[in-house]
Amino acid sequence: MILPDWLAARAAAAPDAEAVVAPEGVLTFGGLDAEALSAARRLAAVGVAPGSRVALALGNGLPFVVLTHALARLGAVMVPLNTRLAPAEASWQLSDSRASLVVCDDAHGALAADAARAAGARVLALDELEAAVPAEVALGRGTDLAAPQGIIYTSATSGRPKGALLSFGNHWWSAVGSALNLGVHRDDRWLVPLPAYHVGGLAGLWRGAIYGIPVVIQDRFDPEAANHAIDVGGVTAVSVVSTMLRRMLDARGDRPYPAALRCVLLGGGPAPAELIERCLAARVPVAPTYGLTEAASQVATLRPDEVARRPGSSGRPLLPVEVRVDGEEILVRGPTVMLGYADRPEETAAALRDGWLRTGDLGRLDDDGYLYVLDRREDLIVSGGENVYPAEVEAVLLQHPAVADAGVVGVPDPQWGAAVAAAVVPRPGAQLDEASLRAFCADRLAHYKVPRRIWAADALPRGPGGKLLRRELRAQAAAHAAGRL
Amino acid sequence: MILPDWLAARAAAAPDAEAVVAPEGVLTFGGLDAEALSAARRLAAVGVAPGSRVALALGNGLPFVVLTHALARLGAVMVPLNTRLAPAEASWQLSDSRASLVVCDDAHGALAADAARAAGARVLALDELEAAVPAEVALGRGTDLAAPQGIIYTSATSGRPKGALLSFGNHWWSAVGSALNLGVHRDDRWLVPLPAYHVGGLAGLWRGAIYGIPVVIQDRFDPEAANHAIDVGGVTAVSVVSTMLRRMLDARGDRPYPAALRCVLLGGGPAPAELIERCLAARVPVAPTYGLTEAASQVATLRPDEVARRPGSSGRPLLPVEVRVDGEEILVRGPTVMLGYADRPEETAAALRDGWLRTGDLGRLDDDGYLYVLDRREDLIVSGGENVYPAEVEAVLLQHPAVADAGVVGVPDPQWGAAVAAAVVPRPGAQLDEASLRAFCADRLAHYKVPRRIWAADALPRGPGGKLLRRELRAQAAAHAAGRL
Repeated sequence: MILPDWLAARAAAAPDAEAVVAPEGVLTFGGLDAEALSAARRLAAVGVAPGSRVALALGNGLPFVVLTHALARLGAVMVPLNTRLAPAEASWQLSDSRASLVVCDDAHGALAADAARAAGARVLALDELEAAVPAEVALGRGTDLAAPQGIIYTSATSGRPKGALLSFGNHWWSAVGSALNLGVHRDDRWLVPLPAYHVGGLAGLWRGAIYGIPVVIQDRFDPEAANHAIDVGGVTAVSVVSTMLRRMLDARGDRPYPAALRCVLLGGGPAPAELIERCLAARVPVAPTYGLTEAASQVATLRPDEVARRPGSSGRPLLPVEVRVDGEEILVRGPTVMLGYADRPEETAAALRDGWLRTGDLGRLDDDGYLYVLDRREDLIVSGGENVYPAEVEAVLLQHPAVADAGVVGVPDPQWGAAVAAAVVPRPGAQLDEASLRAFCADRLAHYKVPRRIWAADALPRGPGGKLLRRELRAQAAAHAAGRL
Repeated sequence: MILPDWLAARAAAAPDAEAVVAPEGVLTFGGLDAEALSAARRLAAVGVAPGSRVALALGNGLPFVVLTHALARLGAVMVPLNTRLAPAEASWQLSDSRASLVVCDDAHGALAADAARAAGARVLALDELEAAVPAEVALGRGTDLAAPQGIIYTSATSGRPKGALLSFGNHWWSAVGSALNLGVHRDDRWLVPLPAYHVGGLAGLWRGAIYGIPVVIQDRFDPEAANHAIDVGGVTAVSVVSTMLRRMLDARGDRPYPAALRCVLLGGGPAPAELIERCLAARVPVAPTYGLTEAASQVATLRPDEVARRPGSSGRPLLPVEVRVDGEEILVRGPTVMLGYADRPEETAAALRDGWLRTGDLGRLDDDGYLYVLDRREDLIVSGGENVYPAEVEAVLLQHPAVADAGVVGVPDPQWGAAVAAAVVPRPGAQLDEASLRAFCADRLAHYKVPRRIWAADALPRGPGGKLLRRELRAQAAAHAAGRL
């Protein structure tokens, strides 16, 4: 199905309305539409054609948004690179995605150059693109829901990341499903401090165009800046992960958020119970969500008005989506599910069976269809035949007043197969000792779930989306084999 | 595409939330879901099967809503009869739609019996349906967007009505398009005093299920009751036609509506300028819309915040819809356009060409894509080679302080081909004379648009949706050939 081009429609309806509020300035819908058209013609001049795959090494800012729409107009596929990748990782993604061009800003010129050299791709700096003479090419003014929009690499807590090929329809149905669950108000204004190269950030950009509302982006996460945008910037909704929200609340103290803030969409992994309780106490309209790259972000979302009644849940599936649990694995079907992993028919066939996406995440549905996400299947710790979900142990550790952050992994154990190990980040000035922490856990968890080893860390290894990188944490656990604080 | 059943999804998510508020009581989403399942099994017991066409001769009330969902569950197609039809008209619609069963309430038992006798259809009273023993049949729990939902007869201002076959997808995309234009709030509550057998009323019922919000229905239009529902019933949106809104405002006096009322969706024909001005003055959040049965109600809608800047417009097309003007005829394409006229391939082929619906309505688009609807093509008066749009003349007559209602048609004229004739309904106690009315028009209209004949009437012939029945008005004009008040 081909819909009128979302951005063009909004630009025609409200050319002077704000579309993107970025650190370097503001673009209206009319301005964004014009810039996207101009950039599309310049991209065409440098050889980008329908079906081309074009990598972006760009921070959060106006060029990212403009190029996202420009590539859409050209029928080209975006490959947004995680800008925190090592050059070898970026190079691997360039090769894997078969992107022949990388567009970069000044801050990521070195990354782009290093990665492109090894992958045999071309690099184009933004000012070179700006200098290109626009080509007179025919550009689409419609949005084909079946067409591929982008290849988004999963943040892969273990193994190689995989490139999920998302369609325009995936984004459309995600935005529509979210609107039918959370509502959409004409005066909405959505703050997206997540990286735009992650699906949570990208989904925010598309929601803005589809809803015709401003999206507020920030170049790096700063809790004060996020709070400021809410306090004085008229923000009504914000997309965050747990670590971001915790820092925002820490930075804020007791001051309540304005009543206009109606939704704090909390993703990036199971929401810790202590954080949800804190939100309830402070009347923060939190909406825990379960989503993944392969389903264009939200799969299920608990609305703020449901949170108190369904502690621990990620809500019901968005209306166009079906969820079932097979064994303990969460399966998802519907129009938000990716076209497949780009150029990887075997991995695609393994992940998509009869239209059902095998998420690799573990969870359960209650009798009313509310989803409770337990953990990544690959992160499950099987200790002495018992299943231990790291998120459950982390949630208990986070209840301890001296613990600022916690990460749990399994480590090989000759007796139990695997043993539970935990890294904790103490709160500034707090005293922590392993014995009392273990006792704290033993009061709240079955014996086999209590960490055998606990060590202190200055920070946990987290991806730019805030997701705990368990592969790195496992490496750290091996290095702390002594297991003492 | 098959979506999870809308009603079942809402019932699972919020079983205790109000779904329908009717004169005879309230049904929650859980209650409506249970009643729809039960009614579907009873309908199956009396022989209704997937693909059956079942006529309804029901007033606005809970049975209409329950049976709408019950037929959907069974995969049967509803044929809602206009309950104000003469038996011969209803009989013709039964035959034309090939409905073999009519379900009726007490108030419409005689109509159903008379119509069914001539058409050879069965009649089933609600209490007979209630007495049926539910059959254990497999019922769909998904909504197939491609499947036919209902046959809705156009209100045909001339000629035979035609049965537009609407799909579930037509209603879905209409609801989604409306949400992306007008917004959808979790606390919305939509008053639909329009007859549910008209597309405007039926669209309201589906919006309620898709959005998961309560729909307030009324068994007959009463301006005091409509105002009451807004004042004390928490209504945030209402669907009306011009005559309804005028009566609501007349009944109300100067008292403003509560701030919670955010949208007065005004359809059923071009909105008279005086009514729009009255709404602006009284801060009524009016949203003039252009829609038609064949496109599942709204095609374009002007948002309340746009009304002051675009006087006379019906707004931009809803996002999934495209509009273009060919000659002066409005053409519509998109997922809200009907499957076709039921069993009428020739009429369907004439109306749908390359996916474009030829609406038979005349209008123009401005440079920003806002639609201005002039009139029905068949209502155009060509007088001395000049085009006269009845709606334009009516709008001027309605500006006169002594005129409560006005209708304009063409009558044969030996000199000019057609001459403009007008019926006016005086305001109570007002003095009207033809000469001063003609002078009033001559100050505001080109000479050839000024009515040659004006006569006074107690009321204008209007269909139950409020649409002026020009065929009848033309007959009255012939009877008033003397053309004097």
